[in-house]
Amino acid sequence: MMSKPIGVGMIGYRFMGKAHSQAYHDVGFFFNLTRPVAMRAICGRDEAAVKAAAAKWRWESYETDWRNLLKRDDIDIIDIGSPGNTHKEIAIAAAEAGKHIICEKPLANNLADAKAMLAAVQKAGVKHMVAFNCRKIPAIILAKQWIDEGLIGEPYLFRGTYLQDFIIDPDFPLVWRLQKELCGSGPLGDLAAHTIDLAHYLVGDIAEVVGMMKTFISERPLPQAFDEGLGATGSASEKKGPVTVEDSAAFLAKFSNDVLGTFEATRFATGNRNAHSIEINGSKGSIKWNIERLNEIQLYLKDDPQGRQGWRTVLVGEGSHPYISAYWPAGHIIGWEHSFIHEVYEFLEAIANDTAIAPSFVDGVKCQAVLEAVEQSVKEKTWIPVEQVNG
Amino acid sequence: MMSKPIGVGMIGYRFMGKAHSQAYHDVGFFFNLTRPVAMRAICGRDEAAVKAAAAKWRWESYETDWRNLLKRDDIDIIDIGSPGNTHKEIAIAAAEAGKHIICEKPLANNLADAKAMLAAVQKAGVKHMVAFNCRKIPAIILAKQWIDEGLIGEPYLFRGTYLQDFIIDPDFPLVWRLQKELCGSGPLGDLAAHTIDLAHYLVGDIAEVVGMMKTFISERPLPQAFDEGLGATGSASEKKGPVTVEDSAAFLAKFSNDVLGTFEATRFATGNRNAHSIEINGSKGSIKWNIERLNEIQLYLKDDPQGRQGWRTVLVGEGSHPYISAYWPAGHIIGWEHSFIHEVYEFLEAIANDTAIAPSFVDGVKCQAVLEAVEQSVKEKTWIPVEQVNG
Amino acid sequence: MMSKPIGVGMIGYRFMGKAHSQAYHDVGFFFNLTRPVAMRAICGRDEAAVKAAAAKWRWESYETDWRNLLKRDDIDIIDIGSPGNTHKEIAIAAAEAGKHIICEKPLANNLADAKAMLAAVQKAGVKHMVAFNCRKIPAIILAKQWIDEGLIGEPYLFRGTYLQDFIIDPDFPLVWRLQKELCGSGPLGDLAAHTIDLAHYLVGDIAEVVGMMKTFISERPLPQAFDEGLGATGSASEKKGPVTVEDSAAFLAKFSNDVLGTFEATRFATGNRNAHSIEINGSKGSIKWNIERLNEIQLYLKDDPQGRQGWRTVLVGEGSHPYISAYWPAGHIIGWEHSFIHEVYEFLEAIANDTAIAPSFVDGVKCQAVLEAVEQSVKEKTWIPVEQVNG
Amino acid sequence: MMSKPIGVGMIGYRFMGKAHSQAYHDVGFFFNLTRPVAMRAICGRDEAAVKAAAAKWRWESYETDWRNLLKRDDIDIIDIGSPGNTHKEIAIAAAEAGKHIICEKPLANNLADAKAMLAAVQKAGVKHMVAFNCRKIPAIILAKQWIDEGLIGEPYLFRGTYLQDFIIDPDFPLVWRLQKELCGSGPLGDLAAHTIDLAHYLVGDIAEVVGMMKTFISERPLPQAFDEGLGATGSASEKKGPVTVEDSAAFLAKFSNDVLGTFEATRFATGNRNAHSIEINGSKGSIKWNIERLNEIQLYLKDDPQGRQGWRTVLVGEGSHPYISAYWPAGHIIGWEHSFIHEVYEFLEAIANDTAIAPSFVDGVKCQAVLEAVEQSVKEKTWIPVEQVNG
Repeated sequence: MMSKPIGVGMIGYRFMGKAHSQAYHDVGFFFNLTRPVAMRAICGRDEAAVKAAAAKWRWESYETDWRNLLKRDDIDIIDIGSPGNTHKEIAIAAAEAGKHIICEKPLANNLADAKAMLAAVQKAGVKHMVAFNCRKIPAIILAKQWIDEGLIGEPYLFRGTYLQDFIIDPDFPLVWRLQKELCGSGPLGDLAAHTIDLAHYLVGDIAEVVGMMKTFISERPLPQAFDEGLGATGSASEKKGPVTVEDSAAFLAKFSNDVLGTFEATRFATGNRNAHSIEINGSKGSIKWNIERLNEIQLYLKDDPQGRQGWRTVLVGEGSHPYISAYWPAGHIIGWEHSFIHEVYEFLEAIANDTAIAPSFVDGVKCQAVLEAVEQSVKEKTWIPVEQVNG
Repeated sequence: MMSKPIGVGMIGYRFMGKAHSQAYHDVGFFFNLTRPVAMRAICGRDEAAVKAAAAKWRWESYETDWRNLLKRDDIDIIDIGSPGNTHKEIAIAAAEAGKHIICEKPLANNLADAKAMLAAVQKAGVKHMVAFNCRKIPAIILAKQWIDEGLIGEPYLFRGTYLQDFIIDPDFPLVWRLQKELCGSGPLGDLAAHTIDLAHYLVGDIAEVVGMMKTFISERPLPQAFDEGLGATGSASEKKGPVTVEDSAAFLAKFSNDVLGTFEATRFATGNRNAHSIEINGSKGSIKWNIERLNEIQLYLKDDPQGRQGWRTVLVGEGSHPYISAYWPAGHIIGWEHSFIHEVYEFLEAIANDTAIAPSFVDGVKCQAVLEAVEQSVKEKTWIPVEQVNG
Repeated sequence: MMSKPIGVGMIGYRFMGKAHSQAYHDVGFFFNLTRPVAMRAICGRDEAAVKAAAAKWRWESYETDWRNLLKRDDIDIIDIGSPGNTHKEIAIAAAEAGKHIICEKPLANNLADAKAMLAAVQKAGVKHMVAFNCRKIPAIILAKQWIDEGLIGEPYLFRGTYLQDFIIDPDFPLVWRLQKELCGSGPLGDLAAHTIDLAHYLVGDIAEVVGMMKTFISERPLPQAFDEGLGATGSASEKKGPVTVEDSAAFLAKFSNDVLGTFEATRFATGNRNAHSIEINGSKGSIKWNIERLNEIQLYLKDDPQGRQGWRTVLVGEGSHPYISAYWPAGHIIGWEHSFIHEVYEFLEAIANDTAIAPSFVDGVKCQAVLEAVEQSVKEKTWIPVEQVNG
Repeated sequence: MMSKPIGVGMIGYRFMGKAHSQAYHDVGFFFNLTRPVAMRAICGRDEAAVKAAAAKWRWESYETDWRNLLKRDDIDIIDIGSPGNTHKEIAIAAAEAGKHIICEKPLANNLADAKAMLAAVQKAGVKHMVAFNCRKIPAIILAKQWIDEGLIGEPYLFRGTYLQDFIIDPDFPLVWRLQKELCGSGPLGDLAAHTIDLAHYLVGDIAEVVGMMKTFISERPLPQAFDEGLGATGSASEKKGPVTVEDSAAFLAKFSNDVLGTFEATRFATGNRNAHSIEINGSKGSIKWNIERLNEIQLYLKDDPQGRQGWRTVLVGEGSHPYISAYWPAGHIIGWEHSFIHEVYEFLEAIANDTAIAPSFVDGVKCQAVLEAVEQSVKEKTWIPVEQVNG
């Protein structure tokens, strides 16, 4: 007998809305779910658009007011994919309504909001997850396993860069991601948030930071229309408005465990379309990874026999690798979208079996604390300790 | 108003069955179909297994005799994913039943059968496609566009290798892919067929070939159980049987347009999990590609400014690249499975709009003619002309 | 008629002594010198060792006191390859003796010394060069040409890392490079100095920095013997001494022209044997380079035709590329040592023709100013402006 | 006391003449020779050119008739770098004069000549070497060690391609390398000879071959002047002459030990400036190498722990790697020219110590037997057994 489905109500229908929809649509195809998932409703303010999205992505219904999702008994999960400035209100209300919550990163536009959200879900006792999907890429889980086994020894150095270039054209329009009141920050919150979370996951807590930020192009045309899924398309109007977030950010970090880290996140690294890469150097070995080749991970082992040491490229596609047995034979690579499938798979299973889930809002708050310390360090031009968060 | 769905009945529920199922499951999520697709029935001889597959992959029903699929009015397409020795009978019957047919490669286990299948679909006037999915990878379509635009000039050389290693272990069991009466040939038909089709697509017809083949391990344990999706798993029994196909094959080819080609297909290239790669050298430029990095293609242009020529790695993920606008922003890579989504998308659209489709059974026969010439050249130890097939 | 040779007296006979010797030995083989070079004398304190070096590397004579070199009329150039703490005294005396000077990097162990050296050579009117050999690698000169032509547009970002791992073993002995009184600093002065100079050369002046440094292993065995040319060999004694330089350093930089830069230099990046790499992102394109593949440079051009943009790997081996016409046909790569050949070639020609030479002590002082600001920023935990140096 | 020098007389002063000269010039700088080398005389027919070469490359004297070299008592080694059609006469005369001989590849323009040369040196009892310099690249020697240790197990497959493109331009002039009477063959003898020798060295003897060849551009302008060192420069005259060698060649090979091999050599692979690459697949592992990155070698080991297998890139620059202790610390790469330094080092030491040397004329004859069988197979369009040569 089929167990009761877990109903999902999702807010947002653009880039992340599509990625999450596809994840719910496919998770049961590849994985055996304890309880099946039901795509109950997608929610957005533009009725025509959200209706079309519901039809295309196979949601059972749609809503134009997110509050309606909270009232529905057939909905167990609220999936928040709207801009950052909306997260707090929705998440707190959803928690109070007893809904489990998966929320896009960064968790909020500032640390206080993020903490309030965490308090709300903890008080309500619901499951909560922050959508750091990079953690769910098989190569990253494999790296975590290797590190936990001690394969690279004691970590010394972390190096993370998230390089994009989609706004390098001065005529790229002033979309919501360039407006601080909507998104909170530029590549720092949008991109470095992923890198910080990977550092937390793979290396440890960050204790102290100092950063720099810059807006290279201070005014941009107001958008007439913009399809985020397609990048910098759509003609811009002639009127301009101020860019209120940074175009580029970088910071130095000292970890609590004495690791030194460097981070950079930018939308001005021409030629780097989505180059999220990390490297970790330890006393016995090192790991390198780049999301543009997400099915590969590089491993170096100092204690390999003399003369045979080298960076080995492991094609993460073996049945023995994380999640891969759900897919294809070795060498038939999977895409970026599968990180979301794994994410919702884990969330659904955590709900069905009442087990712990990570990354949770605790991880979201921890990331936010780093982001906030970086921003403060930029303003004050000095090192700033990161507020430590207890899970 | 929604137009009438196109119903699919699929035979086979292992590796290819799963890949095709996922394609039907997802095609409408990413693409706007003229007529929606309906996954009517999946067919296999083992009722328990096929029933489970139907449930997991969301087929509306299942059958244990493929003849039943042909009788059903709600089925428009027969999708053949069973071993090669079954293709001919099923395809001819399906054509006679007026069904459109998509058939896995190689089209048949020999040229005569393939020609009979082509004659049957042509006589019946149904749509027919052979599942050379590599043709539907965006990087390959892009390569085709570049070649057609004359970007690399007149082609001189083609170099194709399809290297796997999944049977390198002598204890790997004697699965159906190692038995000539079921599969027709080893890596030649299983792997080189893909490379030959790409050569036909990108370069032209092959006129003459000479080849060599070898079976390195002549006896293998009979299998107790085998999950093809997971590769070489499952314990083998102690009894052994003869391997009746080649482990490795290679051949030289002269094309009708004077291009020289080298081909190799093997399951004994340790370290190469699924390394299907091609290179084409022309008078003005060159192209290189490897399916293990299927989102990338390398291009060299001789007429780039002096001193700046180099192999450029194009990350095929731009909205302007083939099929990519259906997916994610630049740099968010897609997986191998999307080749099947594109394949069934094109087949469904060709049916809905009554337009031409490629690769068709004509391409299947052309490929078979090359395979057969290679096999003959091995037996006779000399060059063999390839029977030319008219579309 | 052969013109009068330029006589060289060189101090130091280890790693850099060997590299410079080979450069003098080979420069005339590959290049047409206006005046030939004469390897007059090599100098070191250990007579047996320096005598052997002289014989092996074909110096005409040897000295055990560098002051003797200054007295010899047959010596025009003093080449300083001894540890950093000796540079100032030797260079000032050499300048006063009217000798041209080429000095290893970093120019001195602190800014004041470097400035005194610059004043001395300027007062004496001799030619002076600092041995930032990376600038003389063909790929780097090519990058400079491209940047000067505007190929990558206005620069936005600079990213430089110099990663080594040769002291990762805690038993690696306490060689002079780990003793501050001898070498001035650790990877900062030894490695980052190269990266800083490349940034100055390719991007512009650095205005402000903030850094961090760490010594992961604070005590090491005192060495019994050590062959620098062979890396971490030679047994260590049981007695230990304190490591007085950093093992790892990183800093953020703001350039005068608004470029943002990140720098890292470390001897603890396991798996990176000598990974000196830079990336520059500009408004129209980007450049990437790594000294471990010094014959290659990567170039991305945003304005390449739509859909064809990609990182191209230029194999710097064409007759049209800098210095390459002196060597072999395309694709026959040269080694790291050729950077020194080019360096001494340029120095010899500048002397023979009385023309300007770069990088000069001015560049050495500029680099030192950055190093000193980084060290100060680490001590004061804040941003420090870099003292600007006029050439 | 210094032992008596070994005197060298070299014939040829173009590409190979320069490479060999540099080797003699530098061998003593890096290596400790049992007997020093003396560069006695360089020989060429154009007196002005050979005189200039002698001065530039530091030969003690020059000759315009190679017979004079044989008469000189101060000359122990004859180094033959002139076109292939001259090898036989010179080598036999040199052997009769009791000179040791190092001869460029291919050993001769046909098998009969090569055998006559071998007979002559064997009869004379002189040392003989054929200049297959690829064998002397550290990465290749390392590969040989690994194979001999059984690291990759029993070999199954060999794959070798030597791809160039320097004559792709139809206006490239008709240089001696395109005239059969001078050079014997095109890329087959010029390029594949290297690959065949590597196959002999690393895998074993070739038993049987079948090949194809093609001349894509049948007429070319007669050259006015041509500098081989610079590639395709120099204006061509308007008069044309026939190209009498192939532009491209490929062949299949069956080895005596049941390995299957594919070979390709071409000057028409646009974008490949000097891409000589090999791959060997064995029962336990595989090796890949490309001369354009000659300091790297890739190794795959099947028996690495489950989930960690991958192609590792070994940077051949460790003190423990072949020849590297003569050079620089790890990660400071060497160039192509060092293969010649190693070659003459080994030859000089074999003479000084009267020890065996490889590759000898025996290897040259073995290679020639394969080349001849390939040419015959092309003419007869069938498989041809390779004449087996006893060392």
